[in-house]
Amino acid sequence: MKVRKLTITDASFERSPGQDGDVFAGNVIDQRNGGPITIGYGRYGPEQSIDETLAVDDVMIVLEGQLTVSSAGGSMTAGPGEIVYMPKGEKVTIRSHE
Amino acid sequence: MKVRKLTITDASFERSPGQDGDVFAGNVIDQRNGGPITIGYGRYGPEQSIDETLAVDDVMIVLEGQLTVSSAGGSMTAGPGEIVYMPKGEKVTIRSHE
Repeated sequence: MKVRKLTITDASFERSPGQDGDVFAGNVIDQRNGGPITIGYGRYGPEQSIDETLAVDDVMIVLEGQLTVSSAGGSMTAGPGEIVYMPKGEKVTIRSHE
Repeated sequence: MKVRKLTITDASFERSPGQDGDVFAGNVIDQRNGGPITIGYGRYGPEQSIDETLAVDDVMIVLEGQLTVSSAGGSMTAGPGEIVYMPKGEKVTIRSHE
């Protein structure tokens, strides 16, 4: 596996499994590429919300807009350039804003 | 380990080890936090360059400006919202622009 550049145009967005809201994800690197890491873009419509139990250690970097992540430890809102780290096993609700 | 929000103000920037250019890195999550992932911010001055052999699988998301990554497989330039995936073992030169 070589160094690769990935952009949002490489992502084939699909509705998140088991979700009926306007929350879409598109992976650009996953195990099919032979690496131990999955990398993807996510896209949330306005005022959408998903509940999730993290199957893996997950890192979100917000590129546009804002996301609020609620978990047992509290609630936090992240904007562009900010990171939310969600360890494996945590239960979270991720909510988009306008 | 809980869900955490991380921002650039959480990063204590230090010059990259073994480098004398204006390239700084500040980790916000690492093994001291009990996780298998290291997360950090990097900051490059203009027209800086570093050579590196990746000790781990590394993912860069460009937040501002542009970075050019050169490796055996060629050269690619990434801007805001774009991702460069650098697998473990790859030798790269990372160069900033203006």
